[in-house]
Amino acid sequence: MRPSRRAPDELRPVSLERGVVKYAEGSCMVKFGDTHVLVTATLEERLPPWLKGQGRGWVTAEYGMLPRATLERTRREAASGKQGGRTVEIQRLIGRSLRAAVDLEALGERQITVDCDVIQADGGTRTASITGAWVALADCISWMKNRNMLKTNVLRDNVAAISCGIYQGTPVLDLDYAEDSEAETDANFVMTGDGRIIEVQGTAEKTPFSQDEFLALMELARKGVARLVDLQKMAVA
Amino acid sequence: MRPSRRAPDELRPVSLERGVVKYAEGSCMVKFGDTHVLVTATLEERLPPWLKGQGRGWVTAEYGMLPRATLERTRREAASGKQGGRTVEIQRLIGRSLRAAVDLEALGERQITVDCDVIQADGGTRTASITGAWVALADCISWMKNRNMLKTNVLRDNVAAISCGIYQGTPVLDLDYAEDSEAETDANFVMTGDGRIIEVQGTAEKTPFSQDEFLALMELARKGVARLVDLQKMAVA
Amino acid sequence: MRPSRRAPDELRPVSLERGVVKYAEGSCMVKFGDTHVLVTATLEERLPPWLKGQGRGWVTAEYGMLPRATLERTRREAASGKQGGRTVEIQRLIGRSLRAAVDLEALGERQITVDCDVIQADGGTRTASITGAWVALADCISWMKNRNMLKTNVLRDNVAAISCGIYQGTPVLDLDYAEDSEAETDANFVMTGDGRIIEVQGTAEKTPFSQDEFLALMELARKGVARLVDLQKMAVA
Amino acid sequence: MRPSRRAPDELRPVSLERGVVKYAEGSCMVKFGDTHVLVTATLEERLPPWLKGQGRGWVTAEYGMLPRATLERTRREAASGKQGGRTVEIQRLIGRSLRAAVDLEALGERQITVDCDVIQADGGTRTASITGAWVALADCISWMKNRNMLKTNVLRDNVAAISCGIYQGTPVLDLDYAEDSEAETDANFVMTGDGRIIEVQGTAEKTPFSQDEFLALMELARKGVARLVDLQKMAVA
Amino acid sequence: MRPSRRAPDELRPVSLERGVVKYAEGSCMVKFGDTHVLVTATLEERLPPWLKGQGRGWVTAEYGMLPRATLERTRREAASGKQGGRTVEIQRLIGRSLRAAVDLEALGERQITVDCDVIQADGGTRTASITGAWVALADCISWMKNRNMLKTNVLRDNVAAISCGIYQGTPVLDLDYAEDSEAETDANFVMTGDGRIIEVQGTAEKTPFSQDEFLALMELARKGVARLVDLQKMAVA
Amino acid sequence: MRPSRRAPDELRPVSLERGVVKYAEGSCMVKFGDTHVLVTATLEERLPPWLKGQGRGWVTAEYGMLPRATLERTRREAASGKQGGRTVEIQRLIGRSLRAAVDLEALGERQITVDCDVIQADGGTRTASITGAWVALADCISWMKNRNMLKTNVLRDNVAAISCGIYQGTPVLDLDYAEDSEAETDANFVMTGDGRIIEVQGTAEKTPFSQDEFLALMELARKGVARLVDLQKMAVA
Repeated sequence: MRPSRRAPDELRPVSLERGVVKYAEGSCMVKFGDTHVLVTATLEERLPPWLKGQGRGWVTAEYGMLPRATLERTRREAASGKQGGRTVEIQRLIGRSLRAAVDLEALGERQITVDCDVIQADGGTRTASITGAWVALADCISWMKNRNMLKTNVLRDNVAAISCGIYQGTPVLDLDYAEDSEAETDANFVMTGDGRIIEVQGTAEKTPFSQDEFLALMELARKGVARLVDLQKMAVA
Repeated sequence: MRPSRRAPDELRPVSLERGVVKYAEGSCMVKFGDTHVLVTATLEERLPPWLKGQGRGWVTAEYGMLPRATLERTRREAASGKQGGRTVEIQRLIGRSLRAAVDLEALGERQITVDCDVIQADGGTRTASITGAWVALADCISWMKNRNMLKTNVLRDNVAAISCGIYQGTPVLDLDYAEDSEAETDANFVMTGDGRIIEVQGTAEKTPFSQDEFLALMELARKGVARLVDLQKMAVA
Repeated sequence: MRPSRRAPDELRPVSLERGVVKYAEGSCMVKFGDTHVLVTATLEERLPPWLKGQGRGWVTAEYGMLPRATLERTRREAASGKQGGRTVEIQRLIGRSLRAAVDLEALGERQITVDCDVIQADGGTRTASITGAWVALADCISWMKNRNMLKTNVLRDNVAAISCGIYQGTPVLDLDYAEDSEAETDANFVMTGDGRIIEVQGTAEKTPFSQDEFLALMELARKGVARLVDLQKMAVA
Repeated sequence: MRPSRRAPDELRPVSLERGVVKYAEGSCMVKFGDTHVLVTATLEERLPPWLKGQGRGWVTAEYGMLPRATLERTRREAASGKQGGRTVEIQRLIGRSLRAAVDLEALGERQITVDCDVIQADGGTRTASITGAWVALADCISWMKNRNMLKTNVLRDNVAAISCGIYQGTPVLDLDYAEDSEAETDANFVMTGDGRIIEVQGTAEKTPFSQDEFLALMELARKGVARLVDLQKMAVA
Repeated sequence: MRPSRRAPDELRPVSLERGVVKYAEGSCMVKFGDTHVLVTATLEERLPPWLKGQGRGWVTAEYGMLPRATLERTRREAASGKQGGRTVEIQRLIGRSLRAAVDLEALGERQITVDCDVIQADGGTRTASITGAWVALADCISWMKNRNMLKTNVLRDNVAAISCGIYQGTPVLDLDYAEDSEAETDANFVMTGDGRIIEVQGTAEKTPFSQDEFLALMELARKGVARLVDLQKMAVA
Repeated sequence: MRPSRRAPDELRPVSLERGVVKYAEGSCMVKFGDTHVLVTATLEERLPPWLKGQGRGWVTAEYGMLPRATLERTRREAASGKQGGRTVEIQRLIGRSLRAAVDLEALGERQITVDCDVIQADGGTRTASITGAWVALADCISWMKNRNMLKTNVLRDNVAAISCGIYQGTPVLDLDYAEDSEAETDANFVMTGDGRIIEVQGTAEKTPFSQDEFLALMELARKGVARLVDLQKMAVA
């Protein structure tokens, strides 16, 4: 029934490849099926002005899409002179999600910037970004540990994200573009390794949804995130 | 315990005053306690280019904040040359929320633009905006009905929104700024008059939250929205 | 003869309501008939870079118009990415007008920013803004006096402004939109409480005007400003 | 007493050189002493969108300053990404001033754009610009007449402009930079060849001024403009 | 002597991998050693306005760099709001270079946009981009041929590019970053398959160079381009 | 055969007039036939942030074109909100060219900004700009010497630039607009007084060119630059 013939609770093939660019302190090419995102984590010994002198660090994210990551070419944001609303929304989400798993005091007065650049988009770019960003962030923190820059543990838990939606009346996990463009309802869940919620965003694309429907989606997400967290653990092992 | 001495499930005093500016097809000054938002609905016989010729209309929203709506003056976005990420996020949310209650085919090839301008901000500006926007939108549609511009019903249901959060360990309804800035968890719910969900946005500001905590917030929101919908019905009666 | 049936030297009903928003050091909702402007005065302990270390303060103004303050919706300047020429012209005028009445040395190294946001526009938004801005400024200065922040008097005199024009051959005071859009000549006068001139801006919209016509307008303005100054004095009393 | 040793009612040496660039339909290098402005008038067979189909033409102006026209280098507006408030104010003034002397119906559905670029600035750039712009405009209209593009007279009268101010207590004509930066009061007058007023802008830089002072300035301006109009007539003869 | 131990006329290992993203009509991941650029070619049935109705098509290019393609993170151009001067220079060069090998009349009224996004930068990103762009362009044109969209041959010849420079007194081919940052002289050559020159850009970074030095560089470039053209031919075979 | 009837190796009449504006430390009105560029050199006792504290100075350039320097009016870059790609390319070229002739250590921690503003454009604006910029720069350095601000020689050699191209099959020197718009090949050469090369930029506008053609252009350029350097020496003598 799903265009991809997946079972309702089946993720697309997921891969998390580390160390894909040579300069970054952490990097990960994350693939959720045909959605491919290159994530890098950059450590800098400086902070945004409003955070200076508070004994805490910061984790922030930027998101972009190569112009031909999509079926039709999208205008380059650098050329149009500003980041679109969708980009801004997504990069704020990624940043908040990661910060929820980081002990900013333990990080010290430093900033880690996570760049998520979509090479190819087939639905779920924000959830793939978050899932891959955690791996790049973990590698960046390992890099710091190897240089004795950290005294205590900075990363409290895993963070992974997955989308769910109601497609032709059935709750399904990890929407690809063919499903996403037709789904009645679409929700993104960002969760920790121990199953707690960091972010929930549910949107009724067409028809408002009931609480029961929402709980069914949340249950699917819980399963999906658990599997993603396993994959993250294998990747960084 | 709450700084405002409200009960956990108690809204701030809410008022919805219609017809507050003379030119707009619909308008509403909405107050959730000290949060005051002026909403106008503008009907225009034109559509964004990508929607032309499809026999459907559009509802969109813009959001702004007067510079001194806040405790400290915020820089005017017109002067800084762009709308910030938070503004973009909020106005997209308002637009999506309203569209979920409108039959865009029945609207015909026209656009309604809802402007939400925050006169004074004390937490919950996005939920107040959505709740007031529905009233301005309903008045705009009445204005059209009075001119025989619509054949069928355009507005399917009420739409209202409220925030909830976990404040000092207790789930509370309708956070004001004093609570919001300290809450561990913050969620916004946009719901219809019949209790279904249009948008959910939950964010763990500090600690990830459990599913039970989230359900407790949703339950509070359901009550709050029901009361707001009653107030909307009285306002437009 | 005037669309509003006012006498040629008759102002619209004017009101100056103070303390309309809770955070600002000074605020005023000024109404000249159907023209409504919300003015706030913000005190900040910082100066523009070019003014630092000179022992003087600064008063500046910003002006904006809510999108549906006008008969047809105006594009939001924050969305279009810049302030239009008219906005820039008006806010520079407001700033210059207020500074003419302030002893900047006595103010000390601080900045007062006056924000004038037009809620509803029916002609004369710049003159209403200046007249209301003086009230908000006066309240901001009282706020400072109450905290012993000022040693000497900062506000030298009242400042108020009014428009005049030649409408169907007759010089009239305080043009509303219906008159303004048809007037042959349009002039704005900013004057002090003792009747001296701070700013004069006269524009021949259609036909150049004679010196005698100009003097007739100035005479009307003098009367109008005198009445506005009385109203200001009552407002702050 | 004047730094330049001029009499109070004495203009600086004025020259109006026509045909200074080879492509423009009209051009003029105008010099008021050390203030040098290159003006071009460009005819285009197109109109701004809001003016199309009304049987009328348009005259508009743009103003700029070469970076080193001033004592210290000014940042290039093209590099800073926007035109400053002063630039916007001045170019709107020039456009309005010229339009007051043009019969837009007789011009037909065409636009004339007048570009005023300041090569060297020593006070009075806006009045020099307007005075020179009239010459470039007149040449552009002659160019059209020579090609039988106009049926009736388009240019109703001369337009010239001059500044006046109160310098060390004395009303003086045509302020140069040394005077302008110290003047208590500064006013710009745009007038027609028959002595009527198109624009008046008076600003109390330091102290508000009395009506008598203002009338003295207006009298000086009348004399100055009369002389400028004579020079324009000689230039285009 | 070269940091990479290459011979003076030795290219870095070059690879040209086709078909690396699924949506684009043509694509190529080009690697010159550690410089990796992802190139896509997009066919669109539309033209820039100035080219419409002339019976000719257009080929244009855009260039970007992922923020962490470099040793230190570079600010994202989409976030800073404009493309930097270096980006603009490079993308204009790529577009001109490709157009020199395309019969724009034969292409018909269509546009091909080539996007070159640098994944990792180690010197020579513009020459790698051009060399890979030719492959993506060739694949895009094959895609069109397979759909019978072209009557005649569109691609006249191969186009490839290489840098040369004088490093520690010796002319060397294909500078990597370690050499480029120290080279006295740096030149980029864009040439066709038959050895003619499309673009030459030579810059004396430190000391002006003699004609003989320049000819030595050109000779190296000729050899390098010949090898690159061979690799292109193998790639598209 | 050349539209201007010049011999293939004949420059247009060239003039280099110094001291054309009163404030700049150095200035030059350079004319290559009908191409007229006003160049100013500004000395400032400050550096771009990335250069501070290194004991070296900086020379940079900005380039602009008056709107009606061209046959048809070009949109003002200050109004369109950014400098176009061509402008950026040219001003970077001018800056690099001048720096190649300046001993930045000897200059000390100061910046010289060269502004090249095209008053009238008839082809070759960038080569005229560079040639005139050297004169303005030389005058600025003389100004510094006269004030004992420099200990050693700062200007190592002359810098001049000329374009060449293949027009109707013949290599010609110093293209004017009529030639440039039809030339098959276009190259700009920036050279020192002793005949060495600072910058070469050759572009095949239509057909790629052979190495022999390129060498013919270089030979022409060498002659042209030699004559320009003679003119520079006379100008500053």
